[in-house]
Amino acid sequence: MTNFPNVIASMISMSDIEKEELIKRTEIVTFNKHDIIRKQGDLVEEVYFVEKGIIRFTTLDKKGKSHTIHFASENQFSTDYTAFLNSSNSIYTVEALEDTKLSKMSKTNVDWLFGKVEEGEKFGRIILDHHYQYLENRVLDKQILTPKERYDKMSIVFPGIHQRVPQYMVASYIGVSKVHLSRLKNE
Amino acid sequence: MTNFPNVIASMISMSDIEKEELIKRTEIVTFNKHDIIRKQGDLVEEVYFVEKGIIRFTTLDKKGKSHTIHFASENQFSTDYTAFLNSSNSIYTVEALEDTKLSKMSKTNVDWLFGKVEEGEKFGRIILDHHYQYLENRVLDKQILTPKERYDKMSIVFPGIHQRVPQYMVASYIGVSKVHLSRLKNE
Repeated sequence: MTNFPNVIASMISMSDIEKEELIKRTEIVTFNKHDIIRKQGDLVEEVYFVEKGIIRFTTLDKKGKSHTIHFASENQFSTDYTAFLNSSNSIYTVEALEDTKLSKMSKTNVDWLFGKVEEGEKFGRIILDHHYQYLENRVLDKQILTPKERYDKMSIVFPGIHQRVPQYMVASYIGVSKVHLSRLKNE
Repeated sequence: MTNFPNVIASMISMSDIEKEELIKRTEIVTFNKHDIIRKQGDLVEEVYFVEKGIIRFTTLDKKGKSHTIHFASENQFSTDYTAFLNSSNSIYTVEALEDTKLSKMSKTNVDWLFGKVEEGEKFGRIILDHHYQYLENRVLDKQILTPKERYDKMSIVFPGIHQRVPQYMVASYIGVSKVHLSRLKNE
């Protein structure tokens, strides 16, 4: 059982033939907690939809320090879109933080979805619009919200995240030190 | 003379009839330095393309403090896309930082461009992809670059910005205090 075709069908009109074809073109992949799904520098040739679990996108700065940039949890689409678009190497390492089940679509199949499904292009626009708004909020929140407000807002975007994910990852995501985060939570 | 139709025509194929129609549907608006182009809370019913000048997007936090979130300069498209998409009120005040000339398209005309121009939908996707990458970099840079690196990178995205814009705006955009920015520049 996967949610992926249903989620797409809830956003656009699809014929039964298109739905069947979509299921055929989707691969289910599973990962154990701590598994690396993709490494920084790998070619990005697929998009993921999270059926179950939570994944994390990290990147290394010049000094080799790892930063948590994004998460994705149930019913969220996820890729390194910039690298996917340009068929270039990912700037992110993607890691399973729980036992995780993903629906995976290769670039060829995404091209089929956007190009051959009657309303596929519309679906692409909707997903891109969602992610755009997520990023815009991420930029904005960093400047106008307090760290405590950013912490609280995270669990709206990623339900249950504070019970599911080590706090040092949350601290990195909201841009404070681990010590600062502990202090916030005790206030 | 406007760049707007040429920039679009350089990204997609357009017939002569489409180009003429595009020019008819585009309004040229000019603003003096310090003019407010749109206020936070106003309905967003248009997109802008900067022909000449530089504009700034600010927002107020809960305490009434103003933050510089975005700039746009020559040959950049710009709107509060989230509000434009949802026909909702802008979270940004937009201000001309120099004498500025903009090409402006109303929502009706953007709908025409996306819906009626043969490759209009493709144009929408290209612009959205560009902005997506800009936002992704903005999130990423904030976490992995030093303030000095963010300062230097700004003038690649917005040519000449450090000579064109008061430094307190630059400091707000890169997320440091004005004092911190002065120190960085003296290092």
